[in-house]
Amino acid sequence: MIRELVLKNRSYRRFKQEESISTETLYDLIELARHCASAANLQPLKYIISNTPERNERIFPATSWAGYLEDWNGPEDGERPSAYIIILGDTTISKNFFCDHGIAAQTILLGAVEKGLGGCMIGSIDRDLLRRNFLIDERYEILLVLALGKPAEKIVLEDVGPEESIKYYRDAEGVHHVPKRRLKDIILEI
Amino acid sequence: MIRELVLKNRSYRRFKQEESISTETLYDLIELARHCASAANLQPLKYIISNTPERNERIFPATSWAGYLEDWNGPEDGERPSAYIIILGDTTISKNFFCDHGIAAQTILLGAVEKGLGGCMIGSIDRDLLRRNFLIDERYEILLVLALGKPAEKIVLEDVGPEESIKYYRDAEGVHHVPKRRLKDIILEI
Repeated sequence: MIRELVLKNRSYRRFKQEESISTETLYDLIELARHCASAANLQPLKYIISNTPERNERIFPATSWAGYLEDWNGPEDGERPSAYIIILGDTTISKNFFCDHGIAAQTILLGAVEKGLGGCMIGSIDRDLLRRNFLIDERYEILLVLALGKPAEKIVLEDVGPEESIKYYRDAEGVHHVPKRRLKDIILEI
Repeated sequence: MIRELVLKNRSYRRFKQEESISTETLYDLIELARHCASAANLQPLKYIISNTPERNERIFPATSWAGYLEDWNGPEDGERPSAYIIILGDTTISKNFFCDHGIAAQTILLGAVEKGLGGCMIGSIDRDLLRRNFLIDERYEILLVLALGKPAEKIVLEDVGPEESIKYYRDAEGVHHVPKRRLKDIILEI
């Protein structure tokens, strides 16, 4: 069952933008993250939520999408995320966030998938712009933006050999293909 | 349901050591991680598994446990993990692993919980010792050790205020208490 969630939890980049996500849903997802492991239990992560067109428009221009798709600059209006969760690191609590944001982001996205939603972790962020757009204090490091919505694209996984390209691509039908390394290539026999 | 898994997925540090974990189970867990998101889909993570007493004894001395429990140096023989997954970053694929190991580690532990197991992400590692004990090539950065086993301790979560201590502690009955920040203290109202 976790396997189903993990397989369904793809990096979705096109959404049914008109399907809104409630503040309560976003709180539910952060409530999951709140109960996750954190290095030395310091819990330095903070969150900003966004689920209105006005707020979303302050986030979208600060995000970069799907670097390998050279002819695509991100979702068109109508296919954009209906919500976001910005993950920050509070430097007054810790200067090093280790992989806490990965733990939190993955948990949030698995929770989103369970709710029939989907999302994408975006690390390629115009941090200065995003900081200005929300007046984010310098004490917070901007770690990740999670885009969320009702997915409107098909994504398929493919196995890939160690010497082959891991670049995802979109076929003529608009299906998004994601190559993943094989188990035997990622487990070291030592 | 993901909520149940997340709440059950505590950082367990005492186990029923005699209950072994099969290689197949470890493969199943890494199979989950294999399908997770990875920055730019590079998938630089590699894994070493261990589930025999001989191999486990090459890992345990390289791990540090529960920094806040000053009178406890980690699990006694009989309560130690019955398996480990070492997460490495392959520097020939990427020099920066971002939070990929957090994504993978959380997914593996959620999978373990679903199987009736539990574990702990250990970042406090004697990396030189671990490298020597498994002859891990310099091309691999040692990112995390996941300890795994059948949990043999009770862990309870508690809410904590912003000015209170987040240090976990063990009470007179041996119950492990973990303070977690409240939702209202981690969501910024901006």
